Amino acid sequence: MNFRLKKIRLHALFLFVCASPLWMLAQEINSPNKNLVLKFELRENGVPSYQLTYKGKPVIKSSTLGVETKDVASFIDGFSITNTTQTAVDVNWDPVMGEQKTIRNNYNELLVTLAQVKNNNRYIRIRFRLFNDGLGFRYEFPKQNDLNYFVIKEEHTEFQLAGDHKIFWIPGDYDTNEYAYTTSKISEIPSLMKKATVEINSQWPIKNLAVQTPSMMKSSDGLYINIHEAALINYPAMSLNVDATTFKMSSHLTPDAVGNKGYIQTDAQTPWRTIVVSDKATDILASKLILNLNEPTRYKDVSWIKPVKYIGIWWEYFVAGKSTWAYGKENNVKLGQDFTKLTPNGKHGATTEHAKEYIDFAAKNGFDAILIEGWNVGWEDWINNWKEEVFDFTTAYPDFDVKAVHEYATAKGVKIIMHHETSGAATNYERRLDRAFEFMNANGYDAVKTGYVGKIIPRGEHHDGQWMVNHYIHVAERAADYKIMIDSHEAVRPTGLNRTYPNWVAQESARGTEFEAMGGLAPEHTTILPFTRLMGGPMDYTPGIFQTDLTYYKTGGNQRVNTTLVKQLAYYVTMYSPLQMAADIPENYNRFPDTFQFIKDVAVDWDNSYILEAEPGDYITIARKAKGKNEWFVGGITDENARTATIAFDYLPKGKKYIATVYSDAKDASWNEKPQNYTIQKIIVTSKSVLKQSIAPGGGVAISIKEGTATDMKGLGKL
Amino acid sequence: MNFRLKKIRLHALFLFVCASPLWMLAQEINSPNKNLVLKFELRENGVPSYQLTYKGKPVIKSSTLGVETKDVASFIDGFSITNTTQTAVDVNWDPVMGEQKTIRNNYNELLVTLAQVKNNNRYIRIRFRLFNDGLGFRYEFPKQNDLNYFVIKEEHTEFQLAGDHKIFWIPGDYDTNEYAYTTSKISEIPSLMKKATVEINSQWPIKNLAVQTPSMMKSSDGLYINIHEAALINYPAMSLNVDATTFKMSSHLTPDAVGNKGYIQTDAQTPWRTIVVSDKATDILASKLILNLNEPTRYKDVSWIKPVKYIGIWWEYFVAGKSTWAYGKENNVKLGQDFTKLTPNGKHGATTEHAKEYIDFAAKNGFDAILIEGWNVGWEDWINNWKEEVFDFTTAYPDFDVKAVHEYATAKGVKIIMHHETSGAATNYERRLDRAFEFMNANGYDAVKTGYVGKIIPRGEHHDGQWMVNHYIHVAERAADYKIMIDSHEAVRPTGLNRTYPNWVAQESARGTEFEAMGGLAPEHTTILPFTRLMGGPMDYTPGIFQTDLTYYKTGGNQRVNTTLVKQLAYYVTMYSPLQMAADIPENYNRFPDTFQFIKDVAVDWDNSYILEAEPGDYITIARKAKGKNEWFVGGITDENARTATIAFDYLPKGKKYIATVYSDAKDASWNEKPQNYTIQKIIVTSKSVLKQSIAPGGGVAISIKEGTATDMKGLGKL
Repeated sequence: MNFRLKKIRLHALFLFVCASPLWMLAQEINSPNKNLVLKFELRENGVPSYQLTYKGKPVIKSSTLGVETKDVASFIDGFSITNTTQTAVDVNWDPVMGEQKTIRNNYNELLVTLAQVKNNNRYIRIRFRLFNDGLGFRYEFPKQNDLNYFVIKEEHTEFQLAGDHKIFWIPGDYDTNEYAYTTSKISEIPSLMKKATVEINSQWPIKNLAVQTPSMMKSSDGLYINIHEAALINYPAMSLNVDATTFKMSSHLTPDAVGNKGYIQTDAQTPWRTIVVSDKATDILASKLILNLNEPTRYKDVSWIKPVKYIGIWWEYFVAGKSTWAYGKENNVKLGQDFTKLTPNGKHGATTEHAKEYIDFAAKNGFDAILIEGWNVGWEDWINNWKEEVFDFTTAYPDFDVKAVHEYATAKGVKIIMHHETSGAATNYERRLDRAFEFMNANGYDAVKTGYVGKIIPRGEHHDGQWMVNHYIHVAERAADYKIMIDSHEAVRPTGLNRTYPNWVAQESARGTEFEAMGGLAPEHTTILPFTRLMGGPMDYTPGIFQTDLTYYKTGGNQRVNTTLVKQLAYYVTMYSPLQMAADIPENYNRFPDTFQFIKDVAVDWDNSYILEAEPGDYITIARKAKGKNEWFVGGITDENARTATIAFDYLPKGKKYIATVYSDAKDASWNEKPQNYTIQKIIVTSKSVLKQSIAPGGGVAISIKEGTATDMKGLGKL
Repeated sequence: MNFRLKKIRLHALFLFVCASPLWMLAQEINSPNKNLVLKFELRENGVPSYQLTYKGKPVIKSSTLGVETKDVASFIDGFSITNTTQTAVDVNWDPVMGEQKTIRNNYNELLVTLAQVKNNNRYIRIRFRLFNDGLGFRYEFPKQNDLNYFVIKEEHTEFQLAGDHKIFWIPGDYDTNEYAYTTSKISEIPSLMKKATVEINSQWPIKNLAVQTPSMMKSSDGLYINIHEAALINYPAMSLNVDATTFKMSSHLTPDAVGNKGYIQTDAQTPWRTIVVSDKATDILASKLILNLNEPTRYKDVSWIKPVKYIGIWWEYFVAGKSTWAYGKENNVKLGQDFTKLTPNGKHGATTEHAKEYIDFAAKNGFDAILIEGWNVGWEDWINNWKEEVFDFTTAYPDFDVKAVHEYATAKGVKIIMHHETSGAATNYERRLDRAFEFMNANGYDAVKTGYVGKIIPRGEHHDGQWMVNHYIHVAERAADYKIMIDSHEAVRPTGLNRTYPNWVAQESARGTEFEAMGGLAPEHTTILPFTRLMGGPMDYTPGIFQTDLTYYKTGGNQRVNTTLVKQLAYYVTMYSPLQMAADIPENYNRFPDTFQFIKDVAVDWDNSYILEAEPGDYITIARKAKGKNEWFVGGITDENARTATIAFDYLPKGKKYIATVYSDAKDASWNEKPQNYTIQKIIVTSKSVLKQSIAPGGGVAISIKEGTATDMKGLGKL
């Protein structure tokens, strides 16, 4: 452990009993490497403001800060600075699972205490932490005689951008983050918003012009800027209002059922507002700023939290009309009825027999677990009815024998991943949660995929509101009591809480692979996601689709997964998640055993990660070292354009030879023509090697690097 | 068991493919005793309507029926009758606990099937049950291809009254039923509404003119009419819109957070709309119509559901400034903090030592249990903050040792009643419910008083809305899993569900004794409650206040409980509940051991009940036979006026002498002068005796009747 801590206190610099309207007081801090400068000052009328520069270039021009309240005086103006404190921190910490074994947390902090004379000297604090890779700041509301409870009407945090940046954006929405990305200038957002707001189940687009975070931007002078939030706890998620003329963004909180935007009990603080910035795109992907701003876990025992590579009865529900979640033909069922009396539709996916087939496949190929969706009663009418008691999470369909499947899986050394679709009825889930987890414990499940498809119950609440934010955390904490890992789908976008709740191992919270079966994803989609959605935490993107041409299934439609086969391999490196799926159906893996080998080999937890190349919307190349093993894996992807990736190996121990197995697109391959054409080549590499690898349009490259004996290396080419 | 069942089916009388606008089809049924006649007919445009007469007098003049929906076509008009069925039922059943051991359920039923040609022959049913004591009817929505889910905008059930009746009413309100009653003509309601709408915590008065049910009325020609509902399940509670000019009332459902008034999945039915009617007020109190319209319980084992007579650490929180629910002086606390670090306020009521004093008193005086409020952390800031995580239901204050109290109570043969105040945060309660009940099981609690003081969470929901209606039932059902009895306070008004969920043994749901300590109750209040609130089920009114002059406590204020001491005794008979409190503090019972004897003696579960005299707003006299014992108890009360009660004893077995102990107001007593002056007299009574007993203004009479030996009777006067 590297632990350096330096504390500088500037005691109560000034205390103004009466603030002069023309007076300003400024405070400045630098990032440890001095590239970033944060300046805080009070404007006229005691309005707090801040600005941020990177190597002298403006990132955020002077922008005001404030919180508007409903029932007490607002925290907007009339402030004087009563105290400032500067602190320097440089410590290392080890995540339970992660992209690197050890993370450095190095920042300079400015803590400003602001009092309102007009409100009986009631005071708040704003805490800034300036890292080499960006800024985090938050509002803090200390407990005091005159401030115990209040309701937020809106947070007014401004982000005055310096120009009409290129932006990778999805529409602001209280209920879904499953939009496709649009790339445009900020000034173009108004004309593109309507088209961008495609139909999604249970959406609630924000009425004014707004985009979601993480918001990835690039300035014309080459600055990469990412705005998001960290440690979203007991507070609504933030979207960004957009002024497309002045390029000013501002916070837009998700309201609750009665229009309020946060119930605060002091001591309290907002989530951190984060601005990751660099002149290198790779720095954005390498940033651990958001994790660093989250609190360490308070779990005493984390030994039960483990990486999971899994397959599942899942993709077949989307393609091929092969099978269904539902067991019965009926479209109106109720918990408590006798489900053995339903008329079987004959295509139920989660049968005991089918589960055993998947278990066999998982055992044979070294997977940790299989996900089984559609095992429990209620799927006949689970969607679009705003129905509360859709599922009970403990009653299996008549053709699914929980005990038999558990015993079979245990005998084969495979775990079953539980599935808890809530249909958005969070109240129903909460009231059944202890029993659901007891059921999991009793039947050997140690991880659960949760789902929130549909309008939220409590009715009027939103997926991204304070109540649901607390719900997801409640589920994670309760799950920890039962030593259960969570993989949440359709939950609020992540904000690094996997540090604090490390059993909340992954989330969907974006447009994932399932949309490849519902119209397709743009080839550039996955070159954007790491710069946006994945800034907040691991994504259960569910890669690994080998049969990309979906007309193969001959069940109608004319659709494809818009990648080459090899790009699907590369995702195991570019799309970080310690819970990683091989999403295709087993028979397709059996058809391509040589490429399937990469999925079998690839690690899901890492000692270190190296962002080799990156440009949002264009390409990403990442190398990672497997945790605790001398094995490295490289993934490179491109958008719809072919390119040549430059893959360095300088992260390998010097002076030693390794065998690299390179999975690459065939020359004639592309996302829409011959996507399954690939080549596999073994070569010898060292830390000095550099590979120039051509990648097909919509394609990728995947490399596994292992130690080998001289015999293993015999006859192999050298790079 | 007396079981007679006669079924008459009138098959598909007519089926109209096209309804003629002038066509009407009428159906009529009589009550078994022919006093009541119900007529159903379709008006022009196929609008359903009904009317009800009693001995030829109109009770409800022709009134329309219908349900307005949001997302499917409404169930308002365009109906034709496609089938009618008549059924006669006469059966007896035994409640688990009750005012009588056996209840007769005797009615004639008319079931009308109504189809809407314009909506693809979609059909509903209206089911009428006509008893000798009134009418119940409900809408039924059968499952059908075109009708699986819908949302109710409003139910339009009309009650066209025949005149400007006298009415005992409280304001319509979505959140509270704790108003004082106003007695007026219907036409006078508009001018009195403002005054009647006193301030109550978390109220939500209905904007248009509306009153709550049970609504008790008396016509100028002597008909007593009570409108309420039965079996309120998965539906919002109904208030009554009032047209003060035409005397038409109509259903007004409680909306949810987004303004909807019911989410329906077929098969479904509304609660029963009930009209209890008679020319004798005593028949209203004797009516079991509402219980009869509820479903029998599905609990297999009810042996653990038992009557409870209890005392509690409770009244001292209201009077005397003696003690507090809260332990600390702080006004801002959070679950999870270290409560031993709070600054004790020095007046915490629920201490281990104080609990033991109550246990000693309960054991000495034969009480089953003691209620202990304020035992668990969170009371420092529990109210008025719309705070969700107020209580955890499992963490005791530092000065309350759950295990020690449990052991002490067990050794003395006394149970502790758990207290779960939710502060209105039903979500918080639900998510902690299993753990709370497990905690109760582990610590020997078998009953819990629940509380819902405050604005509901889910925010935007109301105490009386569909979601909360389901919540209360959920709590009752879950409690049954743990063999726990429920006594709910601030819940929706009861509708006879104690038949279906017999562990939901009692409710408050009205202005109870606590208001005697917060401004006082009118002396007539308790002569109205049995005609209103108690029509729906047992009330935990918490009677038994002996020290009625509250200035006695010398802690400021000039206030009194507006009854004589004896009237408090009478409540044990007039205010039915199988869970009955002796609410005063032990020291006051020790001061009056002779009158306290009545409370010790009185039963709380009954073989039979005899409504001897009654006039709403004026007086009530009831005799009851203790369950399984040859003991009878009589309670008589009056309003602010003195009166002479005529107490018959003809329910006693003929030809046998009994000893009656008569507790009566002294001649100089009244509710506001010398309320503690009383006389106790033992006399011999037989079935032929009649006692003319004078009752003081705001006073009462209580009589216990027991068998006795000749020696016991020696020297006693004879009536």
